[in-house]
Amino acid sequence: MFDLLITEQQDTPLYQRIYDEIREQIHIGRLQGGMRLPSVRSLAVQLNSSKTPIETAYQMLLAEGYVLSVPRSGLYIADYDRLFPTEPSRPFNSSPTPGRPEEPLHLPAPPTVVDFNPTSLDPALFPFRTWSKLLKQSLEHFAGDMGKYGDPQGEWELRTAVAQYLWSSRGVNCLPEQIVIGSGMAYSIGILIKLLPGLKRVAMEEPGYNLVRDQFVLNGYGIDPIEVRKNGIEVSDLWTSSAQAVYVTPSHQFPTGGILPYPDRERLLDWAAERGAYVVEDDYAGEFRYSGKPIPSLQSLDRRDRVIYIGTFSKAVTPALRLNYMVLPPALLKTLRSMPYEILFAPSRIEQWAMYLFMEQGHWHRHIRKMRNTYRRKHRHLLALIALHLGDLVEVTGEHAGLHLQLAVKIRKSAQSLVKLAAGAGVAVYDFHKMWMGEKPIAEKFPNVFLGFAGIGLQEMETGIRLLRKAWFEGFSDDATP
Amino acid sequence: MFDLLITEQQDTPLYQRIYDEIREQIHIGRLQGGMRLPSVRSLAVQLNSSKTPIETAYQMLLAEGYVLSVPRSGLYIADYDRLFPTEPSRPFNSSPTPGRPEEPLHLPAPPTVVDFNPTSLDPALFPFRTWSKLLKQSLEHFAGDMGKYGDPQGEWELRTAVAQYLWSSRGVNCLPEQIVIGSGMAYSIGILIKLLPGLKRVAMEEPGYNLVRDQFVLNGYGIDPIEVRKNGIEVSDLWTSSAQAVYVTPSHQFPTGGILPYPDRERLLDWAAERGAYVVEDDYAGEFRYSGKPIPSLQSLDRRDRVIYIGTFSKAVTPALRLNYMVLPPALLKTLRSMPYEILFAPSRIEQWAMYLFMEQGHWHRHIRKMRNTYRRKHRHLLALIALHLGDLVEVTGEHAGLHLQLAVKIRKSAQSLVKLAAGAGVAVYDFHKMWMGEKPIAEKFPNVFLGFAGIGLQEMETGIRLLRKAWFEGFSDDATP
Repeated sequence: MFDLLITEQQDTPLYQRIYDEIREQIHIGRLQGGMRLPSVRSLAVQLNSSKTPIETAYQMLLAEGYVLSVPRSGLYIADYDRLFPTEPSRPFNSSPTPGRPEEPLHLPAPPTVVDFNPTSLDPALFPFRTWSKLLKQSLEHFAGDMGKYGDPQGEWELRTAVAQYLWSSRGVNCLPEQIVIGSGMAYSIGILIKLLPGLKRVAMEEPGYNLVRDQFVLNGYGIDPIEVRKNGIEVSDLWTSSAQAVYVTPSHQFPTGGILPYPDRERLLDWAAERGAYVVEDDYAGEFRYSGKPIPSLQSLDRRDRVIYIGTFSKAVTPALRLNYMVLPPALLKTLRSMPYEILFAPSRIEQWAMYLFMEQGHWHRHIRKMRNTYRRKHRHLLALIALHLGDLVEVTGEHAGLHLQLAVKIRKSAQSLVKLAAGAGVAVYDFHKMWMGEKPIAEKFPNVFLGFAGIGLQEMETGIRLLRKAWFEGFSDDATP
Repeated sequence: MFDLLITEQQDTPLYQRIYDEIREQIHIGRLQGGMRLPSVRSLAVQLNSSKTPIETAYQMLLAEGYVLSVPRSGLYIADYDRLFPTEPSRPFNSSPTPGRPEEPLHLPAPPTVVDFNPTSLDPALFPFRTWSKLLKQSLEHFAGDMGKYGDPQGEWELRTAVAQYLWSSRGVNCLPEQIVIGSGMAYSIGILIKLLPGLKRVAMEEPGYNLVRDQFVLNGYGIDPIEVRKNGIEVSDLWTSSAQAVYVTPSHQFPTGGILPYPDRERLLDWAAERGAYVVEDDYAGEFRYSGKPIPSLQSLDRRDRVIYIGTFSKAVTPALRLNYMVLPPALLKTLRSMPYEILFAPSRIEQWAMYLFMEQGHWHRHIRKMRNTYRRKHRHLLALIALHLGDLVEVTGEHAGLHLQLAVKIRKSAQSLVKLAAGAGVAVYDFHKMWMGEKPIAEKFPNVFLGFAGIGLQEMETGIRLLRKAWFEGFSDDATP
């Protein structure tokens, strides 16, 4: 029996009161999982109201998962108590999203006006028309294969296209056979872990990419944090570590943005050869360099097969696709061949085919060029705005490549408090404390925050930087050094 | 310096001789990785031939990965020796493809005329037009999200749609929060392994799905094989096992095809509750049942939160999509919430959105109904053909659900030799010996082979069955029991 007592307070709209009451009854357990809600009409009669407020309330309950709709039957209470005996349900959209860096769980109030999120791209830059045309094409071209599983290592056509692109753009020398198409860094690292059974300690950049570090830790590996200086990992420190592998981001150290100089690259490869260790090269920003002459990838310098090269489509195309690739050296390829194929599970064939067509038809080269120019423009604009509005109050580093830069703010505050101050002004900037395994060295002369520019418009940028100046320096400019 | 000596034997075409010579020189190491091939024109001059044979030879070398093409530069020798010091490169398309069961590595000669592969679907049944329309729609609807990473547990909209579908069609009671969208069984099992750290032994159906068994073995788990009788796993045997989890396929035991009776389901749940163990319910064939009244899923019968429910879109839509889902009981959901989010990495947001629209717009219900009817028709037709052409010479079991059936062939031969005989006649049938962990019991009165019918046309079916009769019984009918 369904009995709803709707309070009379006229200040809250009826739909809200209906929604509150039903939710309340679910919480206190008067409405049990599996119970059917009355039809909109019958409840309208019971409450002597119009249908609209009831439909609205039901929609809200449905959207929030309190009730489930059974086609041609009605709405039922979800088994709520069973699910959350103790604590209340966490908001559905609050599960953290991956990326570099992850987004803060609770968005700052007031609502963010300008978000310098380093993981975001400008959605407008995604080649919508081309992509949906290519999806259509791949459904047609490969129609006959729609009933079959694909190669778990990735579609052959795509692997050929990737091999040729890597060769021409990054000097990576490999056969399509060496390429493992995947659905992101977590997948690739998961495969590597299976291919390197002996491995128990991994060296990581400190600070470094926490997602990768967590992957290794989750699998019971020991981590040796290796200090990052101005230009990236301090190679000489590797010799004091017992790690049999090191994960590096030489094209744009994540997060500090340093670019590993050529000599260090050779020294890194020497260390690996000497120790029989592997170097995992995450070339996530390989496509985006704004000054100086490009430095070849580690893989292209490696003559001793010590490098595992990993690249992604998340920066150049979209992170929504979850498509990346890993290039295995011959020895690991042989290990892979000797293992049950179940360790591999490539992503959607349809999108792999579409990406193949995207590359094969030349869209890819055009798109990369376009993205590079756009990012260069945004990058230059951001630097100009920082010089104009923040001037000597900050110091920019890690700005020669990638999609974010590092700002040393000349003020006696912690990075966290700078992030908070910015949030208070409606600007999201990022403090990568999660990227540190150990404590952040107090040594740092000034607090560092990070600003991404790929996902943000030129106009927003200006607003954002102006607001940052307000938030950080107006009112306590005496804190700032001259 | 590039010097090509083309033999004079006129019986092989010129392009073939060019191809052979270059490949030979790569093998013996005279052509080294990184060397540039001469342009088609210059080689044509050198050989005093037309361009066509040279272009053809280059195309072949390119297609086989011996050379790589660098846009606006030319063709280069791939670093071949480095890659395969000892053995020759394996043919590119020969890497095994997953599924149930995996396909034989070497296809039988003569080329297969009729393939009863249980993993294949009829590609013509894929809703091409609708799907490409929905991909377009999701690119439009969700354009604003294209620059961002999604929820690693899966897009909220899709999880809501799946929860409602499971509730209405399989009685599965869950909130969208309990659903983990994945890219296939290997992914889901990988997550489970992280959620059940204490777990060290898993019980599996014997025979059972080798992909799942291998996943557990790969991760260092001990396996307790539990005998499968006519109707599925022998629940009573579980009590003698120390496993803290069991993987089962109750809706259509894989591979034997038994349907676990209701009382056994209750007994299975009692065992799990008593032992505090988990039951992994793989409902891969839940949608396809051809006779008798449907038996509720284990999850829907479970009142003690012991069931992990796993379903897939690979059977009803296409395996090319690599899209599945797992329903976690509350306790495991809490464990998940307490872990770093990096253990999850959902597949493409674009295809998740498309699948959401597919379900939300009602295409899904129509499609499932259509597939069910098609499969029922094929299934009935196959049974009729078997009765007509093989009659008493075989015994059909596991035919009440799923997309394949089991054939006990009344002949004194091994299943392997039956598969070989069939292959010799151009028919692929399958012997699931890989599904057995231990030795296949000799006890079996007759050898069993498996025939899938989802991916095959009615006409082919008839040809196939006729050929099987020829291959198995004509010539040695004296072997056959009357």
